[in-house]
Amino acid sequence: MIDEMVRKPGPWLSTQKDTGIIISSRVRLARNIAGFRFPGWADEQEAICLCEDLRNALVALPAIADSDPICFDMNSLPPVDKDILKERHLISNELALKGAGSALIVARDEHVGAMINEEDHLRLQAISPGLNLKAVWEKINNVDTQLENRFEYAFSSRLGYLTACPTNVGTGLRASVMMHLSGLRLLNEIDAVIRGLDKMGFAVRGLLGEGSEANGNMFQISNQGTLGETEMQILDNLVEIVEEVAGHEQNARERLMCDQRTYLHDQVARALGVLMFARMLSSTEAIDLLSGLRLGVELAIIRGLSVMDINEIMLLTQPGHLQKMSAKILSIRERDEIRSKIVAEKLKNVHMCD
Amino acid sequence: MIDEMVRKPGPWLSTQKDTGIIISSRVRLARNIAGFRFPGWADEQEAICLCEDLRNALVALPAIADSDPICFDMNSLPPVDKDILKERHLISNELALKGAGSALIVARDEHVGAMINEEDHLRLQAISPGLNLKAVWEKINNVDTQLENRFEYAFSSRLGYLTACPTNVGTGLRASVMMHLSGLRLLNEIDAVIRGLDKMGFAVRGLLGEGSEANGNMFQISNQGTLGETEMQILDNLVEIVEEVAGHEQNARERLMCDQRTYLHDQVARALGVLMFARMLSSTEAIDLLSGLRLGVELAIIRGLSVMDINEIMLLTQPGHLQKMSAKILSIRERDEIRSKIVAEKLKNVHMCD
Repeated sequence: MIDEMVRKPGPWLSTQKDTGIIISSRVRLARNIAGFRFPGWADEQEAICLCEDLRNALVALPAIADSDPICFDMNSLPPVDKDILKERHLISNELALKGAGSALIVARDEHVGAMINEEDHLRLQAISPGLNLKAVWEKINNVDTQLENRFEYAFSSRLGYLTACPTNVGTGLRASVMMHLSGLRLLNEIDAVIRGLDKMGFAVRGLLGEGSEANGNMFQISNQGTLGETEMQILDNLVEIVEEVAGHEQNARERLMCDQRTYLHDQVARALGVLMFARMLSSTEAIDLLSGLRLGVELAIIRGLSVMDINEIMLLTQPGHLQKMSAKILSIRERDEIRSKIVAEKLKNVHMCD
Repeated sequence: MIDEMVRKPGPWLSTQKDTGIIISSRVRLARNIAGFRFPGWADEQEAICLCEDLRNALVALPAIADSDPICFDMNSLPPVDKDILKERHLISNELALKGAGSALIVARDEHVGAMINEEDHLRLQAISPGLNLKAVWEKINNVDTQLENRFEYAFSSRLGYLTACPTNVGTGLRASVMMHLSGLRLLNEIDAVIRGLDKMGFAVRGLLGEGSEANGNMFQISNQGTLGETEMQILDNLVEIVEEVAGHEQNARERLMCDQRTYLHDQVARALGVLMFARMLSSTEAIDLLSGLRLGVELAIIRGLSVMDINEIMLLTQPGHLQKMSAKILSIRERDEIRSKIVAEKLKNVHMCD
């Protein structure tokens, strides 16, 4: 299954045309089953039994069964395969570190799934390209409702859903939107925007989630609070702020096009030049340079490349994907060399527009 | 005259084939005329009179008259023209800041000349491509001997030639060799080499002389002492150390070719990629990147370019040359744009060999 998956980005990402500033919307719900200890406290046998029950229930739910789901057992999954699932944002670092009794259930097109026995018994998650939070929420809410018919959730009438970490208590909802903010970065305005978001109570994270750097000018903006607001309020607030940030980014891009055209073209052209010429590329550098290309494509400065091509290059040059496709474990040095070859091959017909 | 000069590097630099690690050899002699105050103490009228006398004598000397000499009066020379002479290593910053009573006399092929009323009354100088110190010394010694028939130098039988700055007293000789040490830089061994040279009493300076950075991995190695050694001892010591450093650099290049081929090709290819693609290039960045190209040409990793081409690009993209050829004063931003266009045009048929 992984072998099939590894050659392309998740089909959910290809269902829409070029996505622009807002890359994707994601919602996850933290849920626990009443009467069972949280994963961090349960013994292995308890985790294995509950995992089995949850898995069987999940794949049978109409909302998931229709999507031809796949199961990945953390106990039997090779490290490279775990890396691939992490690179595709399907599992967290924390789940990857687990063994027996932890699993991922995911629709074949990767748009909906559940981590079992990560920090909580269940992390239901759904994703969609573009700004689409309400639809994503409905999808995951549907899964949640169907599952609630089968299991009794740990729930307090005063606090709401109970979770292993107090930051998730209440709705258990984390909604996040991935944005590409390279215009604000080029104008050195990104830090002010992030400080503003932080003050307003939104979390800003990097491409790979909690604790990751904002590689490639990709920022995940999400709600911090899960308590004292309804799901709809959380989503409405996030949509509002995301649209505002997208407006700032759009404005930054227009200013670059009008007032700093040469600087903009220089940055895009340099990214293209290094990606085409380098003989060794780290995955961090590749992602940063691909951000320049993404901006170039979106502003029609570059021809011969689509945003979908960039998404594909970004994913396929990640360490896990690279090693899986090479069918062997590679040193960092070997990966950097192979990565540069793949990138140069994919970009061989790409040109600056002027 | 400047208009003619500005289009090409000094003919002296083109008289030899690709020069490799050792770019050029230079010797200068500091001399003062007995009975006249040093330039820093003389009044303007005194400086003007002496300058006139020295200039007339210099252009009439057989060793200089044969080379069709040109005079540049610092008083009437526009700032851009002074920049050009600095960029061609014909005058120092200090001379450029002077006005009436200071001048440069230089052979049309730029291989021999004299600064009048810089820090000393006379700075006789000669240059040649490659490691050629003895021949350069003979050239300038010849000028010095012919001039000594016409003027009485300030000389002490105990100290030797007297100079404005005590560091030049004695022989008044500074011999220097320009080296391109990019192999040692790529292997992070350059700092150890520079510390060693310093301990052994040699000065190491950047491309543009005293106080300048080692842009483009270009290093000027010169004698520090002028007292207590004969001219021949000074030159012999410098030749010996330069040959040793060249050996280290050669060894570094061989190790790069054998053990770190991909890293070497990566560095050269990235330099080429950025130079071809950038839309804005500072002169510092251009020089640094051209160092990568120079190494690539010398190690036959790049085709379609010679070391002479690189020398030409390096010189013609300097701020003074760039503005003279554009026939107007340009902002830094405008220069960076024009520089990138010139470089891209010159490199359009250049390729990596593999």
